[in-house]
Amino acid sequence: MPTLEEINTANLSALRTEHDSMGNVQVPLNAYWGAQTERSRNNFKIGPKASMPEEIIEAFGYLKKAAAFANKDLNVLPRDKRDLIAKVCDEIIDGRLYGEFPLVIWQTGSGTQSNMNANEVISNRIHVLQGNEMGKGTPYVHPNDDVNKSQSSNDTFPTAMHIAAYKILVDVTIPGLEKLRDTLRVKSDDFMDVVKIGRTHLMDATPLTLGQEISGYVSQLDHGLSALQHTLDHLSELALGGTAVGTGMNTPAGYDVLVAKYIAEFTGFPFRTADNKFEALSAHDAIVESHGALKQIAVSLMHIANNIRMLASGPRCSIGEIHLPENEPGSSIMPGKVNPTQNEAVTMVAAQVMGNDVAITIAGSNGQFQLNVFKPVMAANFLQSARLIGDACCSFNENCAMGIEPNYDGIKKHLETSLMLVTALNPHIGYDNAAKIAKAALKNNQSLRESAISLGLVTNEQFNEWVRPEDMIGSIK
Amino acid sequence: MPTLEEINTANLSALRTEHDSMGNVQVPLNAYWGAQTERSRNNFKIGPKASMPEEIIEAFGYLKKAAAFANKDLNVLPRDKRDLIAKVCDEIIDGRLYGEFPLVIWQTGSGTQSNMNANEVISNRIHVLQGNEMGKGTPYVHPNDDVNKSQSSNDTFPTAMHIAAYKILVDVTIPGLEKLRDTLRVKSDDFMDVVKIGRTHLMDATPLTLGQEISGYVSQLDHGLSALQHTLDHLSELALGGTAVGTGMNTPAGYDVLVAKYIAEFTGFPFRTADNKFEALSAHDAIVESHGALKQIAVSLMHIANNIRMLASGPRCSIGEIHLPENEPGSSIMPGKVNPTQNEAVTMVAAQVMGNDVAITIAGSNGQFQLNVFKPVMAANFLQSARLIGDACCSFNENCAMGIEPNYDGIKKHLETSLMLVTALNPHIGYDNAAKIAKAALKNNQSLRESAISLGLVTNEQFNEWVRPEDMIGSIK
Amino acid sequence: MPTLEEINTANLSALRTEHDSMGNVQVPLNAYWGAQTERSRNNFKIGPKASMPEEIIEAFGYLKKAAAFANKDLNVLPRDKRDLIAKVCDEIIDGRLYGEFPLVIWQTGSGTQSNMNANEVISNRIHVLQGNEMGKGTPYVHPNDDVNKSQSSNDTFPTAMHIAAYKILVDVTIPGLEKLRDTLRVKSDDFMDVVKIGRTHLMDATPLTLGQEISGYVSQLDHGLSALQHTLDHLSELALGGTAVGTGMNTPAGYDVLVAKYIAEFTGFPFRTADNKFEALSAHDAIVESHGALKQIAVSLMHIANNIRMLASGPRCSIGEIHLPENEPGSSIMPGKVNPTQNEAVTMVAAQVMGNDVAITIAGSNGQFQLNVFKPVMAANFLQSARLIGDACCSFNENCAMGIEPNYDGIKKHLETSLMLVTALNPHIGYDNAAKIAKAALKNNQSLRESAISLGLVTNEQFNEWVRPEDMIGSIK
Amino acid sequence: MPTLEEINTANLSALRTEHDSMGNVQVPLNAYWGAQTERSRNNFKIGPKASMPEEIIEAFGYLKKAAAFANKDLNVLPRDKRDLIAKVCDEIIDGRLYGEFPLVIWQTGSGTQSNMNANEVISNRIHVLQGNEMGKGTPYVHPNDDVNKSQSSNDTFPTAMHIAAYKILVDVTIPGLEKLRDTLRVKSDDFMDVVKIGRTHLMDATPLTLGQEISGYVSQLDHGLSALQHTLDHLSELALGGTAVGTGMNTPAGYDVLVAKYIAEFTGFPFRTADNKFEALSAHDAIVESHGALKQIAVSLMHIANNIRMLASGPRCSIGEIHLPENEPGSSIMPGKVNPTQNEAVTMVAAQVMGNDVAITIAGSNGQFQLNVFKPVMAANFLQSARLIGDACCSFNENCAMGIEPNYDGIKKHLETSLMLVTALNPHIGYDNAAKIAKAALKNNQSLRESAISLGLVTNEQFNEWVRPEDMIGSIK
Repeated sequence: MPTLEEINTANLSALRTEHDSMGNVQVPLNAYWGAQTERSRNNFKIGPKASMPEEIIEAFGYLKKAAAFANKDLNVLPRDKRDLIAKVCDEIIDGRLYGEFPLVIWQTGSGTQSNMNANEVISNRIHVLQGNEMGKGTPYVHPNDDVNKSQSSNDTFPTAMHIAAYKILVDVTIPGLEKLRDTLRVKSDDFMDVVKIGRTHLMDATPLTLGQEISGYVSQLDHGLSALQHTLDHLSELALGGTAVGTGMNTPAGYDVLVAKYIAEFTGFPFRTADNKFEALSAHDAIVESHGALKQIAVSLMHIANNIRMLASGPRCSIGEIHLPENEPGSSIMPGKVNPTQNEAVTMVAAQVMGNDVAITIAGSNGQFQLNVFKPVMAANFLQSARLIGDACCSFNENCAMGIEPNYDGIKKHLETSLMLVTALNPHIGYDNAAKIAKAALKNNQSLRESAISLGLVTNEQFNEWVRPEDMIGSIK
Repeated sequence: MPTLEEINTANLSALRTEHDSMGNVQVPLNAYWGAQTERSRNNFKIGPKASMPEEIIEAFGYLKKAAAFANKDLNVLPRDKRDLIAKVCDEIIDGRLYGEFPLVIWQTGSGTQSNMNANEVISNRIHVLQGNEMGKGTPYVHPNDDVNKSQSSNDTFPTAMHIAAYKILVDVTIPGLEKLRDTLRVKSDDFMDVVKIGRTHLMDATPLTLGQEISGYVSQLDHGLSALQHTLDHLSELALGGTAVGTGMNTPAGYDVLVAKYIAEFTGFPFRTADNKFEALSAHDAIVESHGALKQIAVSLMHIANNIRMLASGPRCSIGEIHLPENEPGSSIMPGKVNPTQNEAVTMVAAQVMGNDVAITIAGSNGQFQLNVFKPVMAANFLQSARLIGDACCSFNENCAMGIEPNYDGIKKHLETSLMLVTALNPHIGYDNAAKIAKAALKNNQSLRESAISLGLVTNEQFNEWVRPEDMIGSIK
Repeated sequence: MPTLEEINTANLSALRTEHDSMGNVQVPLNAYWGAQTERSRNNFKIGPKASMPEEIIEAFGYLKKAAAFANKDLNVLPRDKRDLIAKVCDEIIDGRLYGEFPLVIWQTGSGTQSNMNANEVISNRIHVLQGNEMGKGTPYVHPNDDVNKSQSSNDTFPTAMHIAAYKILVDVTIPGLEKLRDTLRVKSDDFMDVVKIGRTHLMDATPLTLGQEISGYVSQLDHGLSALQHTLDHLSELALGGTAVGTGMNTPAGYDVLVAKYIAEFTGFPFRTADNKFEALSAHDAIVESHGALKQIAVSLMHIANNIRMLASGPRCSIGEIHLPENEPGSSIMPGKVNPTQNEAVTMVAAQVMGNDVAITIAGSNGQFQLNVFKPVMAANFLQSARLIGDACCSFNENCAMGIEPNYDGIKKHLETSLMLVTALNPHIGYDNAAKIAKAALKNNQSLRESAISLGLVTNEQFNEWVRPEDMIGSIK
Repeated sequence: MPTLEEINTANLSALRTEHDSMGNVQVPLNAYWGAQTERSRNNFKIGPKASMPEEIIEAFGYLKKAAAFANKDLNVLPRDKRDLIAKVCDEIIDGRLYGEFPLVIWQTGSGTQSNMNANEVISNRIHVLQGNEMGKGTPYVHPNDDVNKSQSSNDTFPTAMHIAAYKILVDVTIPGLEKLRDTLRVKSDDFMDVVKIGRTHLMDATPLTLGQEISGYVSQLDHGLSALQHTLDHLSELALGGTAVGTGMNTPAGYDVLVAKYIAEFTGFPFRTADNKFEALSAHDAIVESHGALKQIAVSLMHIANNIRMLASGPRCSIGEIHLPENEPGSSIMPGKVNPTQNEAVTMVAAQVMGNDVAITIAGSNGQFQLNVFKPVMAANFLQSARLIGDACCSFNENCAMGIEPNYDGIKKHLETSLMLVTALNPHIGYDNAAKIAKAALKNNQSLRESAISLGLVTNEQFNEWVRPEDMIGSIK
């Protein structure tokens, strides 16, 4: 019996003959996959190999196991077959059989062939685990009649999409976002008293504190997390039990509710059977909805990462009000240059997520009759976005956000030279007089104080009393 | 004193001279707007005139009135000025002064000039209501010092965006969606027993009922409405009270909470002051979030309208399983042709909303420091999407959905000739034998029954007993 | 006989009865439109009234006139009818009958009803011009049999789209872009010797001149104009002559070539008949292609306007290396503030065009069989983008670009304090030593010269000789 | 000396110490990459490992070789170093060193670290080729001073983008498109006489031939290819020679022209130095432009693949006018079902490309000052789109298009029952009478002939003479 490693790097030139309803197919000798997988491998040479996301394969492990449990409970599958299926599903979930899933995203739009890939691998892996040789004898557990019992590609693939999507959000995306949000909250608290100049329209404006500025980012991420969590409920609905067109033909009574219960148990997430299976096969609005929240978060991250790098810009010829950690040499030609590289990675991720959202929107809107056949492209885009956001938040958090420090010199210099503190004079001398002071100061390259006094509109004492940046920042929350 | 109608069609060639902090400006004699509006009118000749959405102008009516009430309560505005402002705001809310708002979307990205437009119109309208002539004398209520008191464009415009967005969703979008959803639910119930062929991959599949098929659309709209309603909470947060950079400089204590309370009272919607004003000025994630739900609904509508027209296609050379109402002659060249025109309007609206979502995504991600300066483009796209969806749902509901009827002849013909009923034989004779029957029938142009019997795999009696479409549709929910 | 003004503001409550193949319809008494227009007006109450773009209506003027000429030449229309039709078409082209086109974008996706609107208006307007009263007697020129002769909505509407698209590009978009490009070229030349600090990753980098920086914008617009002009050829292909499905049924031989020739003559643009009419009805890739170039230009404009405002940011607490014209007071709360408002309008326009591109992409990909039924939404988005870009370029050119001036003080200050001039030392002392100097200078708040000398790596004389910003800017092109 | 295979699967736990301007780094013992690559590997754990596209790495092979040649010719690099560099570059171009490029897309947005990765690998690989051991001794060819001579990340990475983009278009995308276009042209010719019913608005319309219908697809692809080819000129401009900010600092005179000449020579494509290096670093409009053409092609492919599957839908309950090849069993539950899986792959690819276009649009618009820092995300999306289109066209061509055959039975049945042939009666009995015939036929379930005769509007002989589908298809081109 070959080891998994040997299987996963199997010599693909030695072949065995497999058979399906369309005839014979030559399959790599030791591969666990069978005729239908091989047909797809040959018929869809589009893009890099084996591009079907691993999260989907893992999700098939959960759902095939849950189906076996439900089928056994409902007396349509014997206990020993259930246990054999479950054993291999656990291997799939552990990632030990990924090498047996050679198919690409760009296959049939129902993911039928990836469903069959799972069925074939489970059947053949059991065959080998039972001491048999690949290609010799008939597997005890049949890929269609046993592994796929009470299922259709049309309900398994969307179920795998929801399992994979829910899981990556909870395991990767949300924790990453929360880490970054928590760090920014600490920074906001730490710098809550650091008064600095504000900017609107990119132009100097009235002051605020650095902590206040950062608190806006925290609020964005809080709202984004909340929006994302609202979408989990729709994602928790599973199509399984709808079979081919949503009617649940060929499933035993109670199967849909039971299989969802098992998936919930095995994954630890509150999955339940979909209210309406006709929707669940022909539309994937839950994916559209949830990715909409990821896109909103991408909008927030673009804003946050872009603003942090603008605040750090310089060190001498731009804003320069915060310091970011120095992680790598910035230039192969300019010595001593350090760049906001983490911010660049985050903003690139944001652009990608925004593009993915359009791919998902188009794909999601194109269901025809009882089936949407853009499932793999929706899954792939969703999972990429969810992982990139989670990973990028962790990377940005550790390698940038945690190290943000105020550049007190830069902040002070700007605050002192700014003309917009003149706003504090409005209540005392009126908007028009205040405007005169600001304009004269700019024209004559004076400080605000110099201009105010030389125009005779304010005395030095009044200026001291009225123009106090620390009084212009509201009640710090 | 000119009538409103005269004002709104004022001869723009007679002029008066107005003044602002940058100097003199010539303004149409009878126009209520002033110097700053006129500057903007001249400096931004981009696209059609007066394109700033009326919903935003109406929202300014609510917020200027609420600000006057809050300012009076907090003792920074006298009662008589409050009442004068409120009186004109009511005219604005009633739409009677729309002609006084000549500015375009494509102005400054903070909407500053539309805020000033409102200030100037309110001040001058009061001046006229008090019996004065335009351009003669100084208005009793000052546009900046009174009407704009405790405000900045930077917090008024985003507040107007939220008021307008919330209001149109509740007044137009949601009722339209609910009407369509309710009609489809009735149709689903009415046709719950109409067994018809299913289709997956556009290919004939196992049967379901027409009511089941339509129930999927209902479920999509239910989920979409739920997603949209989840976003109202974020939209209910108002920026007002943040003033120029979010600190609330120049506002009396308690103002932000109080002004939101008044806006809630005047509009009847549960508005409250934003938790974080720095976010509320520099980012508009609430608009992004809520439009994300509109985009999800567009995905659903594209799916629903497209499928309904495919079901109605024909009348003789395509699917032809439902009838749609005949509303207008379909062709100027082909007599007797009737087209699914309502579906076409709906799907065009869906495409527009999907495009608008990208405009909003890009605009929303580009806030710089304390301000996002893509506010008007975000507002315009949001309001267009919300109105189009609401209107299109009403139009589609009345002129199409309500009149959907099954084409029983077409449904029956397809059901009888379909080969996919063979699936019912799987449990009796196995997948492989069933496949043989289907393929032979297709090849020999036979019915399924003929093929099954001629292959000797099933008797006529068995066929009658086993192949019953009405047993293949699950338990109708 | 009512004047055009009276017609255009006709009292819509007095009615006459019209008839079409589906029965009677009540139409406003004096309106020139007829039964089919009225049906559409009633059946499609979606969004603002009369939203069908005027450019499309104008284009119908050209094509109906050309069709009459071609029909006459081919002996299927008498000369007098041709001349009557042509006369009214000229009124349409002049914009005098816009009020007679009350339909919306969100109608049938073939624009059938706008085609009929044109047919009806031309027929009835002739009736009145001949001295008759609306609703009395039968028009001498029949809307279908004469005005629409040798045409179908399916080929007229896409023809109108191409005419309108081509015309607005040549009349509005390209001239606007060229004006801005020319101004920026002048600025680039004027400032070609103004050495300033460069910035990469938002961080200080080696110097370049302001003219060089601006030359990049010029190059972008040159490339964009070139890309846009490449698309005109595809747009110059006209569908007219394909009639209902592309076969040209019911057209006289030679009609398609001839009618295109007349359209070319009347518009002055090199239109020709489409190589393939089946494509021309069922797909609108020419619109997709040309709007792709508009989207590319939007990308350039976003870049240019954003960078110009960043260069102008300040005046004291940010980059501040150029001055922009002051066009309007910037803030209702901050006296003396002047904002880059033209840049904001341009970047909002860019975001809109990017969104419109997605709407057009989706619409363009959804043709079914012989017809794409997303024509009006494609036309509306295209025309909006083309006009906004043209107008925004003019506005930005006149109110911003022409007034750009260097802020020599700001430029000089940055150049002197920058550390990245250290790059000039690389060839003399090596990258690693140069990095040491830059880092020490930053740490010790020294100038580069001070740091270099205090580290003993360079003498004062060497520094003078080696570090010369004016030698670091390449050969100015 | 380790083999390449050993290197590429090097045990990453044994380490050596490397050094850069920021200090020491531990690097896997046998890896050819050095300190800066390793820093990036540790600092950017975002998404799957080694995601930087191989096409970019290959392009670095070309450009580093060309730079060495140009540097040698201009006397800034000795001949032996040139030859050593060139030797390793050839290994990179052959793909033998891909395992040495472990970095991800989501790194610094200038791709600096991938440029350094190339520099380090070339330097160290030479070191080993010269018989030395990794980590012992100093490489004879220095990564910065020799390999990167006359270069900066800022000009190498965009150069690599253009090389990779141009090459994949010419090698993969265009040949794939041409194959499919050629096959469809053959099919169009073959079926040019197969008269079938047309459909507009999804409703039966006047006839055309199957060959005419397919000719529209051919025309779309012809136009798409032409649009794509127009973009190659912009792509052929190379940034190399601009170095850090576009001025070409630290490059010998004539270098930019010469290095482009060498790249042209080595790749066989007509590359030339960019007219404006400031644009070439800070904007990537050529990528935006060229991907715009890919997006247009995606629109065409969506249309073509969708229409072909609609024509093939059935086999009995839908259109069913063409047959597609049967490539794999279609359903794990419905025996005998065959699905249009290739069409599904193509339409999923189209959706992906449309999404990628938005990512590229956003990324391309966000250049700041002298640099756009969204380079890797632009490259990755472009290369994915270009490959997917090329591969999908080949797959669709071989596995679907080449096997398209008319279903003559289905075509004939529809043609005979269609009501829209009534259009042929218009010239004889008028539009209104023709409409009566069509409506009565539909209502009474009659053929058109029966209806016409029973209404007494046409005789049998007239019907035979006037209603001839083969005369309704125009002059077949």
